[in-house]
Amino acid sequence: MDKTRYEKGWARLGEIDGHGGEQVIQSLQNIAPDLGRYIIEFAFGDIYTRPGLDARQRQLITLASLTTQGGCEPQLDVHINASLNVGLTPLEIVEAIMHCVPYTGFPRVLNAIFVAKRIFEERGLQVEGL
Amino acid sequence: MDKTRYEKGWARLGEIDGHGGEQVIQSLQNIAPDLGRYIIEFAFGDIYTRPGLDARQRQLITLASLTTQGGCEPQLDVHINASLNVGLTPLEIVEAIMHCVPYTGFPRVLNAIFVAKRIFEERGLQVEGL
Amino acid sequence: MDKTRYEKGWARLGEIDGHGGEQVIQSLQNIAPDLGRYIIEFAFGDIYTRPGLDARQRQLITLASLTTQGGCEPQLDVHINASLNVGLTPLEIVEAIMHCVPYTGFPRVLNAIFVAKRIFEERGLQVEGL
Amino acid sequence: MDKTRYEKGWARLGEIDGHGGEQVIQSLQNIAPDLGRYIIEFAFGDIYTRPGLDARQRQLITLASLTTQGGCEPQLDVHINASLNVGLTPLEIVEAIMHCVPYTGFPRVLNAIFVAKRIFEERGLQVEGL
Amino acid sequence: MDKTRYEKGWARLGEIDGHGGEQVIQSLQNIAPDLGRYIIEFAFGDIYTRPGLDARQRQLITLASLTTQGGCEPQLDVHINASLNVGLTPLEIVEAIMHCVPYTGFPRVLNAIFVAKRIFEERGLQVEGL
Amino acid sequence: MDKTRYEKGWARLGEIDGHGGEQVIQSLQNIAPDLGRYIIEFAFGDIYTRPGLDARQRQLITLASLTTQGGCEPQLDVHINASLNVGLTPLEIVEAIMHCVPYTGFPRVLNAIFVAKRIFEERGLQVEGL
Repeated sequence: MDKTRYEKGWARLGEIDGHGGEQVIQSLQNIAPDLGRYIIEFAFGDIYTRPGLDARQRQLITLASLTTQGGCEPQLDVHINASLNVGLTPLEIVEAIMHCVPYTGFPRVLNAIFVAKRIFEERGLQVEGL
Repeated sequence: MDKTRYEKGWARLGEIDGHGGEQVIQSLQNIAPDLGRYIIEFAFGDIYTRPGLDARQRQLITLASLTTQGGCEPQLDVHINASLNVGLTPLEIVEAIMHCVPYTGFPRVLNAIFVAKRIFEERGLQVEGL
Repeated sequence: MDKTRYEKGWARLGEIDGHGGEQVIQSLQNIAPDLGRYIIEFAFGDIYTRPGLDARQRQLITLASLTTQGGCEPQLDVHINASLNVGLTPLEIVEAIMHCVPYTGFPRVLNAIFVAKRIFEERGLQVEGL
Repeated sequence: MDKTRYEKGWARLGEIDGHGGEQVIQSLQNIAPDLGRYIIEFAFGDIYTRPGLDARQRQLITLASLTTQGGCEPQLDVHINASLNVGLTPLEIVEAIMHCVPYTGFPRVLNAIFVAKRIFEERGLQVEGL
Repeated sequence: MDKTRYEKGWARLGEIDGHGGEQVIQSLQNIAPDLGRYIIEFAFGDIYTRPGLDARQRQLITLASLTTQGGCEPQLDVHINASLNVGLTPLEIVEAIMHCVPYTGFPRVLNAIFVAKRIFEERGLQVEGL
Repeated sequence: MDKTRYEKGWARLGEIDGHGGEQVIQSLQNIAPDLGRYIIEFAFGDIYTRPGLDARQRQLITLASLTTQGGCEPQLDVHINASLNVGLTPLEIVEAIMHCVPYTGFPRVLNAIFVAKRIFEERGLQVEGL
């Protein structure tokens, strides 16, 4: 195991995804622990720690990619929470998802918006200006 | 025709996509001119003019959505140029595309990176730090 | 707000999607009301009111697009009901979904058929000839 | 080999896809002839000969499925020609493709429209009303 | 009906998918029985009975295709069970799904792994070496 | 840089993808060299070197994932060559691609088969039994 990448990735995972990300890793322990390790080492240790874009910019990109990929509602749950954790506002999250309509159509955008709606309700958050 | 949305969208299309966007609209004239009108009115007049995210943030989201959608190399061509037009650097564009690897895999990211490579060569641009 | 497109789209949404469509718009009110407005103005006011194809032809196309897009079960629910509302028979709906097998494979077709099965049971409808 | 399904499918393939479909089957002879046989027997012998929807309705569905699937430009080429062969007009073909924008976004619709544009030019056809 | 293909396919469906596959066919009886027949005749009678690859190799391919297609959790349920039925071990199933990460990203792989996790728990199976 | 993973991955990349893989890495040098490094370290150093499945099994899975993902013709080119390099026969490659028809439909399978056809012609290979 590559301790440096793992430790760097685990720290970043905690900062960004918080409890939601740690639960995903934990749930992989008795089925595919190395998949959890790759999420930590590669996705968080390698990619999320790169310079060039800040944490908020990276979450906008993650939201767009997950919305467009489709069928990723569990991962949108983790990353809409992560987006709030790094300082994106509910409005910015909604705008990022809505901006994908011209590229992937309304259905995938609606699916993502309804994940955001549930999370904002759970966390007692309002979209600014509504 | 809704003049306000059309004019607002045409102005935004020109600012963002420049010549590439105008060529797409022009090429639709003898086959589906209303499709071009919807791109101007809806995509640019309605979506790209929304507040809440700035032009550079919106292009990061567009790049992620097009990379992830797959098979959108002609649209990536227009929007990598657009990203440069609104002030994203070659490095930021490359980082935005690379950030999608954990969500959509290497092949779609490679396809998008090779579009960027051709555009940067055509425009004589270097990725900063390389 | 563009009253004409909105009013035209809201009328068409009511004719086609009925209560299901109105519920989707309503559920967006406290999270992304403009997304609901775009569905009304653009999808229903601009696209569904176009001449050239009738309402039944447009629903066949919608069913094929949603089946093929994948992960759109909530939207298939609305549009299988809409297809019945505009006069497609259960048999025509099933045939439209099944016709997609050669293009998108069995799994997405099965997912769509099971949405239709539930709706037909809820509405007490039989596929003709079965 | 199932002569009945094969013969029925080959006749239907000829009626619908014409030369384009036969060329695809021919090009598979020295690599995967059974794949060609399945296209004839299953796609055309089983699916396209089903009652419940007529040939023009089935082509509208095929156009929507191929547009939405993405990356199917060679198959769109065959089936836009097929759509003309069974009596859909250029306008109906363009409308069918455009109707997919709300469900799959502009890029895949643009890719399909540009295939139609090339075919209409090759066949000297105009979209009615333009 | 083509008795030979149907009988050959029904036998292969029983060997591979077991009860899960038969339930899918049964559930189609009052909505789209011909869709069930095509699954038996074409998918199992034509494709799964082909020489050139053995049953375990074909299931590895099925797992990869379903994982990558996305939104196919019900079909993954049937085919992870099928993979066990033809002699793939839990470890081989997990490895096949994980091998798709570079090509389709983490989210679709996670979705597939969590289906496997549930099935292994239901069947009281452990991934070897964990 | 993690020398062990990089060296292990580079060796495996050379064994499997040969010249085609090395060209992809080389072409990334002046645009996104770290993307090439991740392909070496993560895809080849981490994933392709895992125990549990042999090289031929892993290539069957790669072919299925790339065929199903769609729009990955350049990557199919590299990996059909890689499949031959690790000992899969032309027939096994064709069977693996064809096995995906029930899951992803004919168009993506046809696109992949035509990549295989070109490669087999370039390398002077015949599908056994044809």
